[in-house]
Amino acid sequence: MQEGTDTSSGHPAVTAGVEWRGDVYAANCPTRLLLDRIADKWTVLLLTTLADEPMRFNALKRRIEGVSQKMLSQTLRQIERDGLVTRTVEATVPVSVTYAITPLGQTLVQALQPMIDWAETKMPEVGLAQAAYDQHAA
Amino acid sequence: MQEGTDTSSGHPAVTAGVEWRGDVYAANCPTRLLLDRIADKWTVLLLTTLADEPMRFNALKRRIEGVSQKMLSQTLRQIERDGLVTRTVEATVPVSVTYAITPLGQTLVQALQPMIDWAETKMPEVGLAQAAYDQHAA
Repeated sequence: MQEGTDTSSGHPAVTAGVEWRGDVYAANCPTRLLLDRIADKWTVLLLTTLADEPMRFNALKRRIEGVSQKMLSQTLRQIERDGLVTRTVEATVPVSVTYAITPLGQTLVQALQPMIDWAETKMPEVGLAQAAYDQHAA
Repeated sequence: MQEGTDTSSGHPAVTAGVEWRGDVYAANCPTRLLLDRIADKWTVLLLTTLADEPMRFNALKRRIEGVSQKMLSQTLRQIERDGLVTRTVEATVPVSVTYAITPLGQTLVQALQPMIDWAETKMPEVGLAQAAYDQHAA
């Protein structure tokens, strides 16, 4: 395949001066690497939570049931580095750390909304499929 | 919070005779459990690949770089159980196993498209944010 001629994946060949590989299925495609991260349940739950209002670390931990301290820290650091949230430290005792969504993060939340709507509306159909599968498998 | 009165998460209180807990952030919410699975990179890559045409197991393995045999089998079994793909076995030697997307799966691919578009178009902005973060951290 000639460089810059693949349009099948929807990649622009050149964006903002960066030359792209045109295959999201290739392990080293930059967009694939980004998709690896945003297609992640903790990222989705954190961003949709922060889209409503800024929150402190401990409040996020309480809000998102089942997330470990380590996973929460790690995911927050990653999405801060990606420019999706900001981290503000106030010199209280103990220190208060507040996370807020950025305008870029808001655009991602909008893009994730159809997936969340799908999960909320299609759950009964998925449940029926699972019941049929399990009966067949039994 | 009173049962069935929460509309903040977009949950219908009752759908298809199933009573929902209205909080996608709760670890035992059925929609949260579903989101855990569809917000997964292998699921996204498999479904978008199969949306174009049915494919055999080995072709999928070649198409999606970096996926292990075990992870591919496991994800395919899960999305088959969810009613998103079908699995057809032909009695050739060796046996041919073909996966195809279902109409339900197609609706999910449509719902995932904005997220994929976001990853493809916003990559440069994320890259700039990462460079600024790394410079600050260094």
